[in-house]
Amino acid sequence: MIKTAILGGSGYTALELIKILLRHPEVKIEAVISRAEGTPLVAEQHPSLTGRLDLRCEQLNVDALVARGVQCAFGCLPHGVSMSTLPALLDRGIRIIDLSADYRLRDPNVYAQWYGESHHDLAHLTQAVYGLPEIYGEEIPTAQLIANPGCYPQTAILGLAPLVAGKHIDLKSIIVDSKSGVSGAGRTPKLTTHFPECNESFTAYSVGNHRHTPEIEQALGDIAGEPVEVIFTPHLVPMDRGIFSTIYATPVRPTSQEQLLELYRAYYAKAPFVRLFKDIPATKHSGGTNYLDLTVRVVRGKIVILAAEDNLVRGASGVAVQNFNRMYGFDEQTGLR
Amino acid sequence: MIKTAILGGSGYTALELIKILLRHPEVKIEAVISRAEGTPLVAEQHPSLTGRLDLRCEQLNVDALVARGVQCAFGCLPHGVSMSTLPALLDRGIRIIDLSADYRLRDPNVYAQWYGESHHDLAHLTQAVYGLPEIYGEEIPTAQLIANPGCYPQTAILGLAPLVAGKHIDLKSIIVDSKSGVSGAGRTPKLTTHFPECNESFTAYSVGNHRHTPEIEQALGDIAGEPVEVIFTPHLVPMDRGIFSTIYATPVRPTSQEQLLELYRAYYAKAPFVRLFKDIPATKHSGGTNYLDLTVRVVRGKIVILAAEDNLVRGASGVAVQNFNRMYGFDEQTGLR
Amino acid sequence: MIKTAILGGSGYTALELIKILLRHPEVKIEAVISRAEGTPLVAEQHPSLTGRLDLRCEQLNVDALVARGVQCAFGCLPHGVSMSTLPALLDRGIRIIDLSADYRLRDPNVYAQWYGESHHDLAHLTQAVYGLPEIYGEEIPTAQLIANPGCYPQTAILGLAPLVAGKHIDLKSIIVDSKSGVSGAGRTPKLTTHFPECNESFTAYSVGNHRHTPEIEQALGDIAGEPVEVIFTPHLVPMDRGIFSTIYATPVRPTSQEQLLELYRAYYAKAPFVRLFKDIPATKHSGGTNYLDLTVRVVRGKIVILAAEDNLVRGASGVAVQNFNRMYGFDEQTGLR
Amino acid sequence: MIKTAILGGSGYTALELIKILLRHPEVKIEAVISRAEGTPLVAEQHPSLTGRLDLRCEQLNVDALVARGVQCAFGCLPHGVSMSTLPALLDRGIRIIDLSADYRLRDPNVYAQWYGESHHDLAHLTQAVYGLPEIYGEEIPTAQLIANPGCYPQTAILGLAPLVAGKHIDLKSIIVDSKSGVSGAGRTPKLTTHFPECNESFTAYSVGNHRHTPEIEQALGDIAGEPVEVIFTPHLVPMDRGIFSTIYATPVRPTSQEQLLELYRAYYAKAPFVRLFKDIPATKHSGGTNYLDLTVRVVRGKIVILAAEDNLVRGASGVAVQNFNRMYGFDEQTGLR
Repeated sequence: MIKTAILGGSGYTALELIKILLRHPEVKIEAVISRAEGTPLVAEQHPSLTGRLDLRCEQLNVDALVARGVQCAFGCLPHGVSMSTLPALLDRGIRIIDLSADYRLRDPNVYAQWYGESHHDLAHLTQAVYGLPEIYGEEIPTAQLIANPGCYPQTAILGLAPLVAGKHIDLKSIIVDSKSGVSGAGRTPKLTTHFPECNESFTAYSVGNHRHTPEIEQALGDIAGEPVEVIFTPHLVPMDRGIFSTIYATPVRPTSQEQLLELYRAYYAKAPFVRLFKDIPATKHSGGTNYLDLTVRVVRGKIVILAAEDNLVRGASGVAVQNFNRMYGFDEQTGLR
Repeated sequence: MIKTAILGGSGYTALELIKILLRHPEVKIEAVISRAEGTPLVAEQHPSLTGRLDLRCEQLNVDALVARGVQCAFGCLPHGVSMSTLPALLDRGIRIIDLSADYRLRDPNVYAQWYGESHHDLAHLTQAVYGLPEIYGEEIPTAQLIANPGCYPQTAILGLAPLVAGKHIDLKSIIVDSKSGVSGAGRTPKLTTHFPECNESFTAYSVGNHRHTPEIEQALGDIAGEPVEVIFTPHLVPMDRGIFSTIYATPVRPTSQEQLLELYRAYYAKAPFVRLFKDIPATKHSGGTNYLDLTVRVVRGKIVILAAEDNLVRGASGVAVQNFNRMYGFDEQTGLR
Repeated sequence: MIKTAILGGSGYTALELIKILLRHPEVKIEAVISRAEGTPLVAEQHPSLTGRLDLRCEQLNVDALVARGVQCAFGCLPHGVSMSTLPALLDRGIRIIDLSADYRLRDPNVYAQWYGESHHDLAHLTQAVYGLPEIYGEEIPTAQLIANPGCYPQTAILGLAPLVAGKHIDLKSIIVDSKSGVSGAGRTPKLTTHFPECNESFTAYSVGNHRHTPEIEQALGDIAGEPVEVIFTPHLVPMDRGIFSTIYATPVRPTSQEQLLELYRAYYAKAPFVRLFKDIPATKHSGGTNYLDLTVRVVRGKIVILAAEDNLVRGASGVAVQNFNRMYGFDEQTGLR
Repeated sequence: MIKTAILGGSGYTALELIKILLRHPEVKIEAVISRAEGTPLVAEQHPSLTGRLDLRCEQLNVDALVARGVQCAFGCLPHGVSMSTLPALLDRGIRIIDLSADYRLRDPNVYAQWYGESHHDLAHLTQAVYGLPEIYGEEIPTAQLIANPGCYPQTAILGLAPLVAGKHIDLKSIIVDSKSGVSGAGRTPKLTTHFPECNESFTAYSVGNHRHTPEIEQALGDIAGEPVEVIFTPHLVPMDRGIFSTIYATPVRPTSQEQLLELYRAYYAKAPFVRLFKDIPATKHSGGTNYLDLTVRVVRGKIVILAAEDNLVRGASGVAVQNFNRMYGFDEQTGLR
């Protein structure tokens, strides 16, 4: 039984994480840390947890967490706050799975460029492992700090990995056209996520400047062994959850749908959470699960990859538990079935 | 051509009103008054108006409005602000259709009780006409100040008027179970109207203490000639627009669906915007229109009335234009077809 | 490990049941029986099960099921088909949890009146136990045939049981105004459930003649020990899942919200799946769970009960597993946390 | 006053067309032709028309239509049926705006290839004018038969026309990633458009083989004066209405957002229904209108065009009325404001 703490309890990823961990047979949620005033019940912030989690939010006290035997913490803090908060825990030996973006980009200059502030925990940044288990899985068991991957990037990276690894495509030809449910925008009310504004509407946002772009390029560059460039266009879909990415790439030599599916099946033969479909996936089919669903098509000579996932489970809290399972040697699917 | 001003331009009722007035052959929108900083184009606040309304928001200047020939203003201000702002216009002879709640309740004590502040424009309160044309239609042509009715109350009042007028029901037996789309909550982002909170969810709110209760009771009391009491329960539906009310009342003597439909048809024979259906109305059928759709059923001896309307058109801006048409002697349906 | 079969695999309740049973540590899904042509993979009918259930649909063969050790079957068949199919299994000693309506109404005349055909399995009808665990829990462990309760009725029965049991209300005063997500209408495409027809719309249906009415009255009559009459009005909400019932009743003596909440807490003290809230429940909070959430209000002397549940879990497949747990002596919450 | 007939009254485009024509000051809807049994009121098929259109559906009788003075007919029939039905009207001199796909593709071989049947009205096919007013506007006033354009193609063609006309892009580099609300799939219930299947889900369909592909290529080829090839990927969005297209193309020489916006503004200077935005359009902003909203971005050297429209108005019935206005010499915006 691993005692865990959750840092930042009020958002959607924390809620989803708690729901998953409550079903995990090897985990005890020891503490939920929150900046909420007073010590409200976690279930007051998330009524769906009523009768399921009888814990009160508490302020962060690292000594107390250590004394209570917390071995592992999940960071559900905003970027910036994360790199200010986690070092104190890391320095006391607590292992961390950080769901923020703070430790994802290896190059602090890239971080500064895209996030608008300098990185101020370079010491831990160099140790962090990018927690995409299907790609970086061997580094995870020994990592102290996991930078849990972003929601959009997983569809792009896993959707393209077999092609990039085998150099089957022109690495400058990639277009990632992604569509996300609204929970991806977080829990803070804004005009753009006010129901009568975004319901019955579809639009793009952050065209050409979304922060997940360098994260996609870093991982694909790792896989390729050379720089990769992507055009990434996110869109907002009037639904709660789910990401669907339509990815276009130019093959370096003619190929067929069958060949590609075969390539993908081989590449993901040992990845229980990547499902290959002949039909086109839909976000509903992976909703609430840790699966990333893929298919591939060839259209007028171009490759079209179609990828779907649940943005809160596979895209955040589920893959965090998948990482946790690898860190502690549990079956990768524990708590995620 | 009547020159009009719109006071308060940023919300959903103002937007809907502008769309209707742009099609009204006898109206010129002369000014949109807003507290927005600077003088942004109205279309910057409402991108759907791009290319349709080439006006900038302006600060309120009553003298200038009078000088420019504005005869009539539509008030789309929050309650409280409305009764602070409108007297200056009324005193200069401008006729006003006020979409706020400030002039709806004749008794200032009732206003204070439900709205939590004293009414501070008693002079005009006594002159205001409650603008429900099907009930108070004869007073509208000569009114200077129209208190445009609330969205929920119209379904309840028009749904019950034929029964209350003829004393066909026990006046203490009324239950109004209403369901509204989210635009009824206004345009200010809140957690309860944040897309991932209210989408795919259904709940009630303000049970037993919604401010539309005294408005319903006042109008039904007028029709009955004696006090009427209602239990009113509003609910939030994950959709943009539409109100559906399911209304229960105990008849004083046995009746049938056919008799009731006949009664309703006779009562509304001259009301072009009240439609009687044999089938059950749906909010989609009245969506975007000024119609209030009704049917009646008898279930185990009780009367069940089913009423549907668009909350922004019939429930606010459409009926405001219907009032405008009556005030200026235009055909009641002008601009509303 | 109990080997189970699922009869009727193509609908939403079967899908939900499979998902729950896949997480149940004491269950093996041995067979999925379907009238689908050929023997397609269950995952072809339900793509979300890809990689999770590696079974093919099969035709019903009772001998084979017995030979393979199936002890328990879940019936997810349409009403009418259920009472034609289940006797053969019951006669071979298989225990059954029937999610159809066929064995819910004790009086075959009432069945004939509401379902439009005679009941033709009277033998088993008399043995069936109505599977609402919070009310009929003691009869479940020894039952061979459980008539799993309807979705709407559970909100009405559990919402009213404490009041009816203690004779706190006028038993002729009950109004149940219910609202359901569209999955409650099943998986067969119809115009009324075609997306562009029911999305962004709200309406009532089967006013005064919905088949769940006698089911509600039968159970409440059992609790009261005398006949109970309800007015039941179902509505369709543009969302996938969830039922919300707003229930009105006249108390026989004045009461308060605090007294009522106390009464409810005491009544449901041992019911782990009934949650009492001070705030108003929302369907999102019980979504995907087996909880039935309740609160109570007093408005102008009337009692207003607000109840919410997930129609597919609590309303069908979850409560079926709760019944299963009681039948086989497992903790009531096994597989349902 | 032009007397018109509508052929095929039961679908969404017919409904939308009727609503627009009811506000058109120069049109009288003389007949609605339908294969519905009997002669039901049009309002029975479309309850939203109750009290607005007092016509009964009638069987097609060309002589009678001519005798009654019908000069123009709108075809809202399925493809295939259209080319079987319209010749009889054309031969009697009735002008037709055909909303089906039957007369859009000039080359009957292309028609046969994509629609799976031979074209059997070659005589009229050669006379048909493709009714995209911003491109083919000069041919419309004298045309007898207008092939009203498809919904998706308009976003692609108008989104790319300025670039293609000026040869600013590589004509083999075009990717059109389109997203449509569900009404685009028509009014016939299917599993894929059953509410609980497509709500809260996002998916692609007809990847690489959607019938609008050759229509896009034909028009862009006309504009370019040489063949154009596109990769077209349509997706289904859980909303009623609206199409959003994200279009990618490689410029032949470096360019900037400002240059492109300038190019677009000049190209559409006289097109009242094409709106150019600096911000990113959203389908809600053009919802219910005949506007096609556009903006352009440059991302990593590629051009990204973002286009939004209402699929039923701009995408079908609104542009049909725009064509009608041009055919009869009315102001292009009549009835469409």
